Amino acid sequence: MTANSENTLKVAQQAFEHFTHGLATGEWQGFLDMLTEDFTFWFPMGKYHGLNEGKEKAKEFFEYVSECFAGGLTLTLDRITSNETTVVFEFRDEGLLLEQPYKNRVAVSFDVRGDKIYSYREYFGSDGKSY
Amino acid sequence: MTANSENTLKVAQQAFEHFTHGLATGEWQGFLDMLTEDFTFWFPMGKYHGLNEGKEKAKEFFEYVSECFAGGLTLTLDRITSNETTVVFEFRDEGLLLEQPYKNRVAVSFDVRGDKIYSYREYFGSDGKSY
Repeated sequence: MTANSENTLKVAQQAFEHFTHGLATGEWQGFLDMLTEDFTFWFPMGKYHGLNEGKEKAKEFFEYVSECFAGGLTLTLDRITSNETTVVFEFRDEGLLLEQPYKNRVAVSFDVRGDKIYSYREYFGSDGKSY
Repeated sequence: MTANSENTLKVAQQAFEHFTHGLATGEWQGFLDMLTEDFTFWFPMGKYHGLNEGKEKAKEFFEYVSECFAGGLTLTLDRITSNETTVVFEFRDEGLLLEQPYKNRVAVSFDVRGDKIYSYREYFGSDGKSY
């Protein structure tokens, strides 16, 4: 593994810890601090479907997520793959979505620049009802 | 990159070429030949939602996919990440689903054992209507 790949993995893992914490608690500041100002993200469905641009939009999105999952989401990490610039986390999550049982399998792909995340793509592996 | 990681990446890339060819043409034999007998896969929705076990089930699934996308699906590969055992391909695909325009963003994660794929997970990044 090159020094670049090692840094990419380290930064993405740190961001993923903040991401996990945000989903569990609704506290997003740690994750937001790791995003570049020109951060963009792709989301699979709903109000934020498609490409979303800017850190402000991200803040709005993550607050919206924590409103939907008011009791928090619990993640179980299954796999990490990476290259020089990108790290993919495959995990399962579980919680209550607007008070209904929610379960999904998810892949998120973080693009790293320096010590920040500049882009991320989210993919759903299930329907929100079961794994 | 270790020798294991290199082999994993090489095998998965070869399988992904066959996968791409299968989606484009409906010819799945090359891909099926690269699957172990105990192959399993996870699919996000519909008739094959969840965990599917066995190579026969995979054959049935891929033939079903090619019936749904009778004109073939065209893939654009965006990113590859990998580790010692697993390779994730992020791509976009486009075609006609039961004669209606279809577009999606997809991540597939292949697990490699020796020179074969023993498991794969598929994740959708969009709704099948747009990227």
